[in-house]
Amino acid sequence: MALDPVLRAIVTICILVFSAKVLGEIFSWRKIPSVLGELLAGILLGPYALGSLIAINGSPLIQINDIVRAFGEIGGILILFVAGLEMTFRDFRKVGAAGFVIGTVGVIVPFIMGYGLSLALGLGTITALVVGAALVATSISITALVLQELNRSRTIESRMMISAAVVDDVLGLAILGVIVSFISTSTPITALSVIVVISTSLALWLAMTVFAAIVLPRIINLTSKGKEGTVEAAATASCFGASALAAVLGLSPIVGAFAAGMAVASSKTIEKIRDYTKKISVIFSPVFFGLAGAQFDVRSFITSDLFFYAFFAALVVVAIISKMIGCGLPAAFFLKDRSKGVKVGYGMISRGEVGLIVAGVAISAGAITQSTYAAILGMIMITTVLAPILLRRAYDKDPPEEASTSTGPEDKDAPDYIPTYPL
Amino acid sequence: MALDPVLRAIVTICILVFSAKVLGEIFSWRKIPSVLGELLAGILLGPYALGSLIAINGSPLIQINDIVRAFGEIGGILILFVAGLEMTFRDFRKVGAAGFVIGTVGVIVPFIMGYGLSLALGLGTITALVVGAALVATSISITALVLQELNRSRTIESRMMISAAVVDDVLGLAILGVIVSFISTSTPITALSVIVVISTSLALWLAMTVFAAIVLPRIINLTSKGKEGTVEAAATASCFGASALAAVLGLSPIVGAFAAGMAVASSKTIEKIRDYTKKISVIFSPVFFGLAGAQFDVRSFITSDLFFYAFFAALVVVAIISKMIGCGLPAAFFLKDRSKGVKVGYGMISRGEVGLIVAGVAISAGAITQSTYAAILGMIMITTVLAPILLRRAYDKDPPEEASTSTGPEDKDAPDYIPTYPL
Repeated sequence: MALDPVLRAIVTICILVFSAKVLGEIFSWRKIPSVLGELLAGILLGPYALGSLIAINGSPLIQINDIVRAFGEIGGILILFVAGLEMTFRDFRKVGAAGFVIGTVGVIVPFIMGYGLSLALGLGTITALVVGAALVATSISITALVLQELNRSRTIESRMMISAAVVDDVLGLAILGVIVSFISTSTPITALSVIVVISTSLALWLAMTVFAAIVLPRIINLTSKGKEGTVEAAATASCFGASALAAVLGLSPIVGAFAAGMAVASSKTIEKIRDYTKKISVIFSPVFFGLAGAQFDVRSFITSDLFFYAFFAALVVVAIISKMIGCGLPAAFFLKDRSKGVKVGYGMISRGEVGLIVAGVAISAGAITQSTYAAILGMIMITTVLAPILLRRAYDKDPPEEASTSTGPEDKDAPDYIPTYPL
Repeated sequence: MALDPVLRAIVTICILVFSAKVLGEIFSWRKIPSVLGELLAGILLGPYALGSLIAINGSPLIQINDIVRAFGEIGGILILFVAGLEMTFRDFRKVGAAGFVIGTVGVIVPFIMGYGLSLALGLGTITALVVGAALVATSISITALVLQELNRSRTIESRMMISAAVVDDVLGLAILGVIVSFISTSTPITALSVIVVISTSLALWLAMTVFAAIVLPRIINLTSKGKEGTVEAAATASCFGASALAAVLGLSPIVGAFAAGMAVASSKTIEKIRDYTKKISVIFSPVFFGLAGAQFDVRSFITSDLFFYAFFAALVVVAIISKMIGCGLPAAFFLKDRSKGVKVGYGMISRGEVGLIVAGVAISAGAITQSTYAAILGMIMITTVLAPILLRRAYDKDPPEEASTSTGPEDKDAPDYIPTYPL
């Protein structure tokens, strides 16, 4: 019997969720971030690889229809809502001068280097903006896990990385908002229009974030005396409502989800909501990463086009160097310790969810080519693998007596921002 | 800025989830089963009521597009998976003679009375089958909650109701499987074809249930040592995979979900999976009930067609009488107590999820008219309100000393089947 689109979607989601977890599990045994397993599941099962081969009754087993795409999009929204949940406004204010400077410079340097590299190689302005934006946000969750494994998550450089990552997440989302405005309204890109769009986006973002911070915790606290499931329903409505509001305002929906998460984070029932979102992410988040992988055409890497290889190699180098300069240098300055500065730089190299969302939004809108998408995805995968390896090596070189919990002035002000994305 | 279909769906789901909980909360204060609140949210916000009036930029705020429908369908699948989770095969075997007889007679009598009523009123065979099937399954969760409130959930008649409800759930789903076969293959309905379809459906259902019971607990137990979220991913894959398998075999997907739930129920990590499914139901299940409500055209009840009122009134009477005869009589016989038999009859009157799914499948397939759908939904709502009221009255009449935990021979064999649908 033929399956209707809903059942086709159910089959696809079922296979994505299961294989993402299996690969993620295998990867995490081998100390590779398991998010790469979820991406690989998508690449392997996607239409560019096995997906087109495994078929039942002539139709492929994995079919990425509108319903699967909707689950992926909702997955992205939930991932950013969860990231927001880990950070209250109080935490954000506690980031401290060091975290703020490292985060900001660590956004500006990669963005300009990525933008400049793309323009220098003759790519268009929109592509250059996307490449710059994809380089901005650190996937600190991976680094945070490695630091926990090494028992160094209470060191001063560790807390500095996390503070800086909070800042680069927020700025990365603001940049995404700007890019979405340019893509969706096809505003001609001039110095003036860039300034107008940036200020409008930032103003809207700020207004929405403040609005969410005032309204949402009250709603959530109101529902906290309700029956089982009421708080969870209110959290869902907050997340979805803010995403839709952001979209209506011309921002990316995930910007709204992040703002809603930050707002809800200061409600009384935050632990309940964290547990709930962790559970629902089990269904949605592998679809997000799986789709990101499925859109990746392996053939992009088997090309006779030397330009692609040059661009890809340069992009990876820029991704590494720009965070070493943007985060490592200022950290060395603040800590007055070259070796700790290098560690901060290493820790900030990994890119992840936000980069994937930027690239995904751009390729869905037709703003970048398949080969640019492949290069960005390849860069994300390499940096994600590289950061933990570099970080482990750097700490292995340390004399063992330094493994203590050396805390400094910035330390006690740093937020407890350990994102819990499904890694 | 215009919203894409995913964001439209997000807005609709957000509003459905939130308003269903708000109405459910208000209803449960007034001791009305909160599932009616969720249905009412759908009716009020649906295209036949306010849904078409509240509009932004000329397009209705609530838009039931394919993605929302997919969430509703997945909601139905999850509701039956959760129902299955509450019941292991051991429980099913422990139902005991009384539960089995009451459950079976309580399925046969309503089915035949509903089928006969419809034929007598000149409705078609398929419509008559649907009406019969919608009358079969008791929504025991509502009754179970009332019994808990009255502190009578350990009485012998209470455990008898729950055993019988287990049986009528299973038989109700088997009948649904048969009807789906008739609707989807448009087999001409003859005595022979009915027998063939019933035996094929039952054989397939049995084969799938046994297969699930053997394979799924092993898979789940294998994953129980995995990282966070692995068991949950395996449970999701089991539920979705079994639903798709059922659909491929020509059964209703929810039959597969129920079988998967029963199978998974005997795994070691069942508590984790119950908690997980309860959480994800927060998103999906209000969409299921909301859609059931949204398909309800209030205007069906404001008609000059006297036939409709006659059919509706007769249907409600049949719904009540058929369970009083089918369950109350045999219970009075087993318990040798007329008053307890009446209570069992009252407790079994409420219809719910399975009836909604039967009617929803039928109207989506165009097998019943809008007015038949409205009559079935009205019957479900009335019986759901009536059962707790009748039950409370019957117990209020009892002398207070009888409130103890009187247990009988059937009692210790009865399963602990208290479904945890989001009521």
